[in-house]
Amino acid sequence: MRVSAVDVIRAKRDGGRLTDQQIDQVMAGYTAGEMADEQMAALAMAILLRGMDAAETARWTQAMIDSGDRLNLGTAGRALVDKHSTGGVGDKITLPLAPLVAACGAAVPQLSGRGLGHTGGTLDKLESIPGWRAELTEQQIRDQLAEVGAVICAATPTLAPADRKLYALRDVTATVESIPLIASSIMSKKIAEGTDALVLDVKVGSGAFMKTPERARELAESMLAIAAAHGLRASALVTDMSTPLGRTAGNSLEVAEAVEVLHGGGPPDVVELTVALAREMLRLGEVRGPDPAEVLAAGRAYPVWRAMVRAQGGDPDAALPAARHVEPVRAERGGVLAGIDAYPVGVAAWRLGAGRARQGDSVDAAAGVRLLADIGTPVTAGQPLLELHTDRPATLDAARAALAGAITLAEPSTPVERPPLIWQSLGSEK
Amino acid sequence: MRVSAVDVIRAKRDGGRLTDQQIDQVMAGYTAGEMADEQMAALAMAILLRGMDAAETARWTQAMIDSGDRLNLGTAGRALVDKHSTGGVGDKITLPLAPLVAACGAAVPQLSGRGLGHTGGTLDKLESIPGWRAELTEQQIRDQLAEVGAVICAATPTLAPADRKLYALRDVTATVESIPLIASSIMSKKIAEGTDALVLDVKVGSGAFMKTPERARELAESMLAIAAAHGLRASALVTDMSTPLGRTAGNSLEVAEAVEVLHGGGPPDVVELTVALAREMLRLGEVRGPDPAEVLAAGRAYPVWRAMVRAQGGDPDAALPAARHVEPVRAERGGVLAGIDAYPVGVAAWRLGAGRARQGDSVDAAAGVRLLADIGTPVTAGQPLLELHTDRPATLDAARAALAGAITLAEPSTPVERPPLIWQSLGSEK
Repeated sequence: MRVSAVDVIRAKRDGGRLTDQQIDQVMAGYTAGEMADEQMAALAMAILLRGMDAAETARWTQAMIDSGDRLNLGTAGRALVDKHSTGGVGDKITLPLAPLVAACGAAVPQLSGRGLGHTGGTLDKLESIPGWRAELTEQQIRDQLAEVGAVICAATPTLAPADRKLYALRDVTATVESIPLIASSIMSKKIAEGTDALVLDVKVGSGAFMKTPERARELAESMLAIAAAHGLRASALVTDMSTPLGRTAGNSLEVAEAVEVLHGGGPPDVVELTVALAREMLRLGEVRGPDPAEVLAAGRAYPVWRAMVRAQGGDPDAALPAARHVEPVRAERGGVLAGIDAYPVGVAAWRLGAGRARQGDSVDAAAGVRLLADIGTPVTAGQPLLELHTDRPATLDAARAALAGAITLAEPSTPVERPPLIWQSLGSEK
Repeated sequence: MRVSAVDVIRAKRDGGRLTDQQIDQVMAGYTAGEMADEQMAALAMAILLRGMDAAETARWTQAMIDSGDRLNLGTAGRALVDKHSTGGVGDKITLPLAPLVAACGAAVPQLSGRGLGHTGGTLDKLESIPGWRAELTEQQIRDQLAEVGAVICAATPTLAPADRKLYALRDVTATVESIPLIASSIMSKKIAEGTDALVLDVKVGSGAFMKTPERARELAESMLAIAAAHGLRASALVTDMSTPLGRTAGNSLEVAEAVEVLHGGGPPDVVELTVALAREMLRLGEVRGPDPAEVLAAGRAYPVWRAMVRAQGGDPDAALPAARHVEPVRAERGGVLAGIDAYPVGVAAWRLGAGRARQGDSVDAAAGVRLLADIGTPVTAGQPLLELHTDRPATLDAARAALAGAITLAEPSTPVERPPLIWQSLGSEK
C-alpha cells in the first residue's frame, strides 16, 4: 500500500476526513490481504464513533464496488427494479413482491442474503422449498430475468467482495451499527448489481436494526445520498417493525404465508406493504402497467412465483417442512390484544431453530412462531395466542422465556389499533 | 470465554464502564488466543475514543499483571527503587541514574525496552557496548542486584505477556495514544517487577509522546492512580522534552555521554535531571545516604557502572563503535542559538540509523546526532552546530531534510535561556 494503514486509522480516529486516495487504497489493500484484519477493525470502530460524511461514504461505497465486478443483467427493454429491506421479524415481503412486480412488467433482480440473529433471511426462507437452490451464475440470473422476470438468489461471489469480507469482520467486532458502514454495505451490492431503480424499506422499531424513527430516517437519507452520488434512482419507505409483519416468523411458515398472499389472501399488513413497495418500484422504474393491488388480489402474480421457484430447481407443489412439535402460548387473562412486540417474537423464532447465531450456522426450515390473534381483537383467558414450532423440544423453554412480556393485553373493549405500517416516504418526489 | 467479546466491545463503544469480570475475561481470552486480534483492536480503539476511568484502568493493569508472573527480586534489605521515563530525544538518564542510585544504597531493577520511531531505547544504547547482553533470567537479575545493586536489562518473557501482545497490536492499529492504555502498559510491568517505589519521568514537548503539559500531567496522574490502587509508592516529575537532553542522540554517542556524567562531567541538564530523579527515588525508597549530587560529581557511581556492564558481559573499557561518516550542519547566519527542536533531531538520528521504524528492525550503534553548541550561546555564520553520524551516507540527505527549521537563531545579544528542565512534581508529598 502506498498510504500507510496506520496513518489512515489515525486520521479517522482524530476526527478527520478520509481522502479519496486513502479510501481507495485502504479498500484495495484490505481486499488483497495487505491491510490486516486488526487494522480494518480499528478503522471500522473509528468510523463508527467518528462518522463519515456523504462524500466519504459515497467513495467508500465506490471502493467496495470496485473490489469486484459489476453485473450486466440487461433484460432487453424491461426496467430492472429492486428493493432492499433492512430486515425485521416476519419480513417475507420479497417473496410475493418480486413475482408481483414482474407480473406488472418490470424485471426484479433480488440478490439477497441470509439471516443473522433475530431477523430471518430471504434465502433461508426459500431454501425451505424442496429442491430450491440459491446459487446462480450471472448468466443464469440474466436468463431467468429474461424468461421469468424475477429472480431471488444469492449474491455472486465477485459482487463487492470487500463488503463480504468487511461485513464478517464487523460482525465479530461490534462495528455493525454504523450508519455509513451499513448504508455503503447495502448500496455497494445494489449498485454493482446494476439495477435501474431501487426502493428501500427501512424498518423501525424493536424488531428492526434501527430502533428510533430518527435513526431509520438517517440511514434512509444516507443510502439515498449514495444512490444520488451514483446516479441511481431510489426512494425509501420507513416502515413499522414494532410488531411482526404478518402472522408468521420462521422459514417455511413465512413461505406458506407468502403463497397465501400470492393467491390473493394473507394478512392485510403483508398485502399493504407488498403493494406499496410494488407501486413505488414500478413508479421509479417508469413502468406503466396494471395496478399491483389488482394483480395481487386476482392471483396473477402466483404463476410468476411458480415459474421463479421452478427455474431454481424448486417444486412449488411440494409440501413444505412442518415442525414435529407445535406448542401454544396461551393468554394469561382475558382482554384485548393490544400489542405483540417484534423483537421477542424474533428471538423466540431464532431460539426454536429458525435463525443462526453465527454466519455459517444452519437453520431449521420448519421452526418458528405463528401468531394466532391479531392486534385489536378480544381474547379470553387460556386462549392460544401464539404457536411455537420446532423440531427441537429442548428449545421450547428458551423460546417461552424470550416471549416474557412480549404480549400486551388491555382491558376488554379498549379500542386498540395496529400502529401505522408506513411511517414516512423519502426521496419519492424524484 | 464466558463473556462475549462482542458484548464487551459494544459496551465500551457505547461509552459504558467495563466490569471487573469483563476486563479479566477479555485479557485472559486475548492472552490465550481465544479473543481475536481484530476484536482487541476494535476494543482498543473504543477505549482510546471513550476512555476508561481510574477503577477500570487499575483493573486492566491488574489483568495484564495476572497474564504472567510477578518477579521476586528480593535484595536482602536494600530497598528496590525504579524509574520509568516516557521517552524522549537524547534521554540517556537511566544509564548514569541506575548506578548512581545503587551507589547511594538502593537496589535498582531497570527492566527496559527498545526504541521505536524517533525516541531511543535504553537497551539499544547499552547494546553498543561490545559484549553487553540485555537478556537475563530472573535469577541472574536477582544475583546482579545483590552483587552490584543495579541492573538494566530486558523484561523477562513472563512479565505481563498480555501487555507485550497488546502493545504490538496497538502499534499497527493507531491505538497507542490512549492515556489509560499507556499508563496501564507501563505500570503493569513495573508492578509485576515488584519494585518497592517508582519515580515516573513524564516528558512533555515536541520530542515527547505528550506534546502538552496538560496531557503529560494527565498521564502522570493516571499512572499515579494505578500505583495508589496497587499500593506502590510512586511520584512523578513532568520534565521538558522541547529540546534534546544533553548533547547527543544516538546509541553509542549517548553511552559515551553517560560515561562523562558518571565521571563527574557531562552536560548540565543531564546531570541536573539525573540528580533530581535519584533524590526522588532515594526519598521514596526511604534510603538515607549520601547526596547523589556529591556522589555523581566525585565519580563514585562510575565503579558501579563498570560492575554493571561487566556483569552483563560488556567490556567497559572497549572502544565504542564510531560512525564512518561524520558531517556538520552549519549555522546559516550568525546570532544566538535560541532553540533546538527535539522532534526533528530525533527524526534525524532515526533516519541516520539510530532508530527503528518497526519492532524487530535492527539499529546502528554508531549513528546519531551530536549537538555542538548550547542554547543561549552566540554562533557565527558557517559555524558547525550539529554533527550527523552515520555508517550509511545515503541517509544524510533525509536527515538534513528532517532538520529543516529545527534550529532557531535569534539576533546577536538577545538573552536566551534553556527552558526549565522540571515542569512539575506530582505525588511527591507521599
